[in-house]
Parts: sequence; structure tokens; C-alpha cells
Amino acid sequence: MKLTSYIASDGRESCGIVTGSVDQPEGIIDLGERFRSLRELLADPEGLAFARSQAHGEANVSFADARLLPVIPDPSKIFCVGVNFASHVKETGREMPAKPMIFLRFAESQVGANQPMLCPKVSDQFDYEGELAVIIGKRCRYVPEDEALDYVAGYSCYNDGSVRDWQRHTQQFSPGKNFVETGAFGPWMVTRDEIADVSALSMKTRLNGQEVQAATLDDLIFDVPALVSYCSSFITLQPGDVIICGTTGGVGAFHKPPLWMKEGDTVEVEISGIGILRNSIAKEAPDFAIL
Amino acid sequence: MKLTSYIASDGRESCGIVTGSVDQPEGIIDLGERFRSLRELLADPEGLAFARSQAHGEANVSFADARLLPVIPDPSKIFCVGVNFASHVKETGREMPAKPMIFLRFAESQVGANQPMLCPKVSDQFDYEGELAVIIGKRCRYVPEDEALDYVAGYSCYNDGSVRDWQRHTQQFSPGKNFVETGAFGPWMVTRDEIADVSALSMKTRLNGQEVQAATLDDLIFDVPALVSYCSSFITLQPGDVIICGTTGGVGAFHKPPLWMKEGDTVEVEISGIGILRNSIAKEAPDFAIL
Repeated sequence: MKLTSYIASDGRESCGIVTGSVDQPEGIIDLGERFRSLRELLADPEGLAFARSQAHGEANVSFADARLLPVIPDPSKIFCVGVNFASHVKETGREMPAKPMIFLRFAESQVGANQPMLCPKVSDQFDYEGELAVIIGKRCRYVPEDEALDYVAGYSCYNDGSVRDWQRHTQQFSPGKNFVETGAFGPWMVTRDEIADVSALSMKTRLNGQEVQAATLDDLIFDVPALVSYCSSFITLQPGDVIICGTTGGVGAFHKPPLWMKEGDTVEVEISGIGILRNSIAKEAPDFAIL
Repeated sequence: MKLTSYIASDGRESCGIVTGSVDQPEGIIDLGERFRSLRELLADPEGLAFARSQAHGEANVSFADARLLPVIPDPSKIFCVGVNFASHVKETGREMPAKPMIFLRFAESQVGANQPMLCPKVSDQFDYEGELAVIIGKRCRYVPEDEALDYVAGYSCYNDGSVRDWQRHTQQFSPGKNFVETGAFGPWMVTRDEIADVSALSMKTRLNGQEVQAATLDDLIFDVPALVSYCSSFITLQPGDVIICGTTGGVGAFHKPPLWMKEGDTVEVEISGIGILRNSIAKEAPDFAIL
């Protein structure tokens, strides 16, 4: 089952089931009458079962016309993982990490599939990072690795858009990882029952149609169970929380010369069995401010 | 005016005005009928004016009996600043930073004044960090430094409780700064109109009555306007957002031998003109988990 969040025809934020296949999505069966958000659906012990009971109904809107939101627009927590593929560790010149490198993203920095990712006015160093997003389905703390997948609701694609000069202002990455409308998340979540082995998936990033990143998820240094277990050690995971598992080699910053995303570009993150997250790139107006 | 968040006698989360002085708080005038939270009060353009109109009323509860929540229990964003006092930069052996070092804390890692701060079962390296908390009052993006204070609603005390070994698992601080019930925030917020010059305030931390940190806020490397301006450059600040301005020299990790907080200890962060944030230390049970 594919679930997503979107703006319904009456303008309210809603969630629903995506009909059609991963390659050819057709429509959205709205679930907004029962759940105000996908996070609320996941937090309801009957949420996924209710959604399944509706999955053979008629779509309310065509998928192509829907304005998508980030799959979870309002997660209480987004954990990002740095340098978690051997190939990416190599290009950054770092050593193999002994523990997962966790930094955080605010929900307000996200943007939905098919919406523009926004290069801020204060930088031109806007970079892509194709990643697997793991969406938590059940509350947990101190979950052991061998039980961790029980707490996962599903998977999606994420583009952890990074403003590299701001990421490197200091040792801490947060500013460059939290610009408004830089964290693209979508186009939907595929429930865990449909992914037999997450480590067998492959992931590609394309910039203007050209492949710039490619990896298989068995190359993760810390795999999904390890990440869920680690994050649940310091804070209670909640339904709708998101862990984005880190990017692989090929980021624009390490191209020579660097390959930055610029206005009018199109960037895609594709994960086999999940789908394609596609975004154009827009540039913030030089005089933009909210005062 | 002093505003706080607490559990009202009927068990619901509420907010109110603290009566009495900073040294001798007396009671709380409940504002819960009009606002569900202090964040909601701050987001309402009439919120502070309404509160002021109620400030001479009768208190509903005695302050000593109130169970306090973090001043803002549910900020959409908490920005923490690393190594922002010259004296603390010196003890960590780091160089003077050219930009503010920003890392993030989840709202769910917070705890109110007079509640126990929780040393997790997975570490004994639980350290204090006395800090000034700045609470945002108005939405802003790209605010210049010379206008930044207009967007500040008030100030409070914060103890950025840090689990040092987890903070140092990798270069990114997040895990050690986000354990459950480690970020103490209180006992109230003093509105900005009552603080003529925030840089003139002095700050002290005491562990079991013994002074372990002392600083004046004119020793901040990046002052309050600089921090508000910088954070608003990457993401839109919202009413109720919190910036905690960094700690000064004297943290337990750099004592020889290290001075960790342990079960039964009492830690206090006092800022002149604002008040005293007091917490005991508790230890998580060895078998604690949520599964």
C-alpha cells in the first residue's frame, strides 16, 4: 500500500492511499475524513488496517493533479545520518564511523514531491543527497536491533538538500541542512509489508536526467535496524518520526568542479520498489524576507 | 511579566502568569481558558496584551504546588549554540568560531523546573550546561541584527543537560543532547520589556550548592541579536521557538577528575533578573524500555 499527504481539493491538508503502481500512480483515495494527517493515521492502532479496508475504493483525485506534501508533513522528529555508505565515506576523506553520525532536520525545512526545492538567496552551493527514508509506525525506546523492523511503518525517498557552505560554517551541520524547502520527501510511503528486504533495494539520483549517484542499500554501514535501535536509545520514537539513512558517493560538492543544483534543474531520487521523488529547483528572490 | 507552562489542577496542560517576584514567586494566574499553551499565546498578536490585562488578578494556584512544564513545552524548533563564551572555548581547546555553532534539540527531550533531570541508563557522563534561553515572539526570516530584538518575546534559564560520551560518538552532537528529560527549561519566561539590557545579566550554575559556572552575558561571542539573525537566515523563526545561547566555562567534563551529575544531586541555573531553574537528578531504571 502506498500512502501520501497532499492538499485536498478544498484546500485542507489531507492524506490518502495512492492507487496504481509505483511506476504508474493513478489517483488518491482520500482518508481525510477519518484522519487529519498521515502521522495521525500511523499513531492510531487501527490506522493501517482501516486504510487497507479502503484500498480498493474509487480514487477521489487524479494523482497527476494532486499537490503533494512531504509524506509526513509534521514529524515530531527527523533524524539524518551522515556518511553512512562506504563509498561516500571514501569521497569525504573521513574514517569509517564507529557509531551512526546523527544530525537533525526540522519538519519546517521539508517540501513535497513535484514541488520546487529552494536554493536560498544566501548561497549557490545547493547540493542533492538521495536517501532512503524510514517512517516509524509505533512508539518505542531502547528497541533491540532484532526487533527494530517491527516498529517501522514503511519507506520513502528523500532528497536531503544541503547548502554546503552553511553546512561547513562550523563542525555542526544543522544550518546547511535546515534551509526552508530543502528536504524533499516523497512521493509516497510504501508500507513495510511490500518490501521483503530493504537491503536489497537500489537507489539512484539523477540531475537533469544524468545519473549522479547509485548505490545498493546493502552498502549501508549502519543498516535500518541498527539506525532505529540507535536513535531509540536516546529518545522515544513516535509514529511518523523519520530516519533518513544517509547518502552515497557522488554528491555535487565532490565533483571537480563542484556540481551545484541551480534554478530550472530537475533532480530525481529513485529507489527500486518505492518510486521516484522528482523536484525542480527554484531560487529564492534576492530581496526575500519575512519581517 | 513572568509567564510559565504547568499542569493545571484538572490535569490538563496550561499556561499562566506567575505572581510575586523573581525571588519569591507566589502563585499562577491561569490563562488556560483563553490559550491552550504559551506557544499559542505568543502566536496570538493580542496574546501578551491580554496576559498583561490579567496580571493583577487573583492567582488560581500556589506556585509551590504547581507542577511546572518546560516554559514552552512544544516549540517547533530549539536551536542550541555551542562554544559561545570565550572562557568555554578556552577550556574545550577549540579556536574562536567565525560563525555560531548551531545544533538542535527536540522538544521531547525537555523537562520542566523542579522536575528531575534524567541520567539515562546507558551512561554515567551526565553533565550540566547553564544557559540563557531566548524565546521568539514573532515570525521572521532574514532579520537583520539591529531589528532582531523586536522578535524576542522574553528570556528564561536553560540547563542543556548533556550526555557527554554520546555527544562524542561522532562529530555531530545530537545524540548526547537529546536524551529524554535532559533539557531543563524554566521556571518561567520574563518578558523582554523587563530586561533593559540582556548583555548585562550574570549567570551561575550550582551543583549541590557549589558554584561550578559563572559568567556575564556580555562575554557571549555571538550575542542575542546575532544569534536570532543567524538562525532566521536558514529557517523561518516562529513564536515559541527557542534559542539557547551556549554555556560558559566550568562544565563537569573538564573538571579533573570529571564532575558528573548523579542521582540525588541538585543543580541550579540562576540568571540575574530572571530567576533560578532548579532540578534534582534521577537515574533511569536499568531495565527501562518502551516496547
